[in-house]
Amino acid sequence: MTRGADSNPPAAVDLIRAKRDGHELSASDIGWLIDAYTQGVVADEQMSAMAMAIVFRGLGPAELRAWTDAMIGTGQRLDLSSVPAPTVDKHSTGGVGDKVSLILAPLVASCGAAVPQLSGRGLGHTGGTLDKLETVPGWRAGISGQEFVHLLSTVGCVISAAGADLAPADRKLYALRDVTGTVESIPLIASSIMSKKIAEGTQSLVLDVKVGSGAFMRDIENARELAQTMVRLGTESGVRTTALLTSMDVPLGRAVGNAVEVAESIETLRGAGPADLVEVTLALAREMLALAGITADPQAALSDGRALAKYREMIAGQGGDPDAPLPTAPHSQLVTAESAGWLRRLDAMAVGTAAWRLGAGRARKEDPVSAGAGVICLAKPGDEVRAGQSLLELRADDPDKFAGALDALAGGIEVGPERPVVAPVVIERIG
Amino acid sequence: MTRGADSNPPAAVDLIRAKRDGHELSASDIGWLIDAYTQGVVADEQMSAMAMAIVFRGLGPAELRAWTDAMIGTGQRLDLSSVPAPTVDKHSTGGVGDKVSLILAPLVASCGAAVPQLSGRGLGHTGGTLDKLETVPGWRAGISGQEFVHLLSTVGCVISAAGADLAPADRKLYALRDVTGTVESIPLIASSIMSKKIAEGTQSLVLDVKVGSGAFMRDIENARELAQTMVRLGTESGVRTTALLTSMDVPLGRAVGNAVEVAESIETLRGAGPADLVEVTLALAREMLALAGITADPQAALSDGRALAKYREMIAGQGGDPDAPLPTAPHSQLVTAESAGWLRRLDAMAVGTAAWRLGAGRARKEDPVSAGAGVICLAKPGDEVRAGQSLLELRADDPDKFAGALDALAGGIEVGPERPVVAPVVIERIG
Repeated sequence: MTRGADSNPPAAVDLIRAKRDGHELSASDIGWLIDAYTQGVVADEQMSAMAMAIVFRGLGPAELRAWTDAMIGTGQRLDLSSVPAPTVDKHSTGGVGDKVSLILAPLVASCGAAVPQLSGRGLGHTGGTLDKLETVPGWRAGISGQEFVHLLSTVGCVISAAGADLAPADRKLYALRDVTGTVESIPLIASSIMSKKIAEGTQSLVLDVKVGSGAFMRDIENARELAQTMVRLGTESGVRTTALLTSMDVPLGRAVGNAVEVAESIETLRGAGPADLVEVTLALAREMLALAGITADPQAALSDGRALAKYREMIAGQGGDPDAPLPTAPHSQLVTAESAGWLRRLDAMAVGTAAWRLGAGRARKEDPVSAGAGVICLAKPGDEVRAGQSLLELRADDPDKFAGALDALAGGIEVGPERPVVAPVVIERIG
Repeated sequence: MTRGADSNPPAAVDLIRAKRDGHELSASDIGWLIDAYTQGVVADEQMSAMAMAIVFRGLGPAELRAWTDAMIGTGQRLDLSSVPAPTVDKHSTGGVGDKVSLILAPLVASCGAAVPQLSGRGLGHTGGTLDKLETVPGWRAGISGQEFVHLLSTVGCVISAAGADLAPADRKLYALRDVTGTVESIPLIASSIMSKKIAEGTQSLVLDVKVGSGAFMRDIENARELAQTMVRLGTESGVRTTALLTSMDVPLGRAVGNAVEVAESIETLRGAGPADLVEVTLALAREMLALAGITADPQAALSDGRALAKYREMIAGQGGDPDAPLPTAPHSQLVTAESAGWLRRLDAMAVGTAAWRLGAGRARKEDPVSAGAGVICLAKPGDEVRAGQSLLELRADDPDKFAGALDALAGGIEVGPERPVVAPVVIERIG
């Protein structure tokens, strides 16, 4: 059923039936399909049926490469060849309290690499790097390709929104998958992420694949398969790629929200960050520097202020004022321990959903987010707590939001008499 | 994941995900989905993803009942309670040379049952009963519901197009499935067929499920599963239902086309029909009369002219002139045996495709069909043939069409030295 490269344009329904029945699609058929879909020749109802067939049948390695290449081919590729330093990016599959990019980009840049970080906005219980940085007065996510390359060459790091011309097929396909129950497919997730990263033009890429209750991937097997799939895809496309599987059962660090996460990032850049956040950030930094061929100790750059100086430079480069005070939410409420013992569980999904309901997240792409709202974790699993001790501080612009946030937290916090075993945050390296 | 009947309106994407993950959908969720889809609230791309999920996951018996009921509920149900005789219909899943309805409806009516036959038009290699009858001068398929009931009560049989108000969800859903590779699902096929038959209001129904190269179901296992599914669905919906599995590896009878099939039907009603056609027709007639509780010998009604008289009455009742000559195609070409031996194979799909290319069939719903075009099988498998003996007569309005028809026949005719075993046409009864 594989069609030759020289055949006539295929009919979409024949390709859907072939995939449905477990046959392999040729690169030329996939190229035609993605292109025709982007141009509106293949209808949404055909592409959603194809996506559902892929949910069940998967894509083989050659199909996945062709699919990803075709998505890249619908748009532009950034040319970073004029950047003097080796380029290396990081992508996280998304978690709760995941402010790593804000620290990591200037940290790695301060060690001599160039970090071209195209980021997204938050949706649902996970936050977005751009939403966080936009709480810094003056800072703007939308910069031109020229500015992007200029900042990368001069400052060494830049965090911005991906332009509409980067793999536009992915934008259209992702919106379709979102409403048709076809998001949960490892090859479709891998090609969605990697098409943008490859089009971005980075030489190297480190993937932070989150695993756990607050992550898209709940179990280690799926996370590992996704990581392996993306590493293979990146490598075969000429991007040096490795991945870390990191835990997302508990929020990363203590702050979950927008401005609160910027504040915690600055604290971490000052060398005073929470242990789990520092651990993940340094592990990723070491991977990135190794791929970039740079021998440097990122821990030293955090301790001696070089990373913080680079952060200030990066913020200023995109119009932000690193000295301006960050917005805060006017209302707060504490959540306390009902009994004494050890904090055994602080569920990432529960805390992420609470922060979302407090106003830090959005339900639809077009919704605004609150700059100051969020959750501060005053204790983390493994901490001993007294009865009545504050465990969380909830912050909101509107006190009516506390009730929904408390509902989301119900069952997500566990204090017990036995000291829990706290698992390492970095689980596994793939590459 | 089954949602209660009292829950809020579900989101389509949640129902798609539930089906995708193998959960059972509740009757109320299915009712909402079908209704919302028919009204355009659920988008085509969501319904096609759901249909593909059903291709992989199937529908359980309760889901299938709910799905079918919901499709019926989007339109009207015919009320045949005023018809004095017991009502019994037949549905065929479609084959090549399948003119059974033209003979069966008047035959069974002549034995005392009322036959409300809502039929369709042909598509691809299979013909449609309405296309065939429309070659009878004056005959019209489109009659009102009132006329339908009147003819059923007076003549005892009527063959007409299904109105747009009979399970309109099915019309919309079928068109969607056709372009999204989601036709091949036994529960979706079963609900599509049975929703219209149940809405039609017949008391009893006999299904002719075709199996073989020229049928939608190529293998006996799938055909049996489809038959069992429809029999159960009909029975549970209060329609006495049985099914026969009949062979469709070879065209049924000798004529394949439109007017040529009407002519063969009249011959059969005169008692001079080909053996396989008579066998299938009588087997179905016996099933129908048994369900209707009528003790009568349909063979006698064929032999003594009662069935033919009823046919003439039926044609006249719908404006047709049973004495008018039927249209013929002006061009013909013979296909001859290359060597002497036994005709071992005459492939139904090859002959059906040849007739289609000669003009008897259509590729798209809106295409016209030729009245006179088609194929006459001058020999059938099991016949001994001489070298050079005519096997097929091709007929067309346009002699340019012969080449394509001959191409379609290539490999579909086999003459060999050994006499073949001719399998029985009626394979199995299910009910």
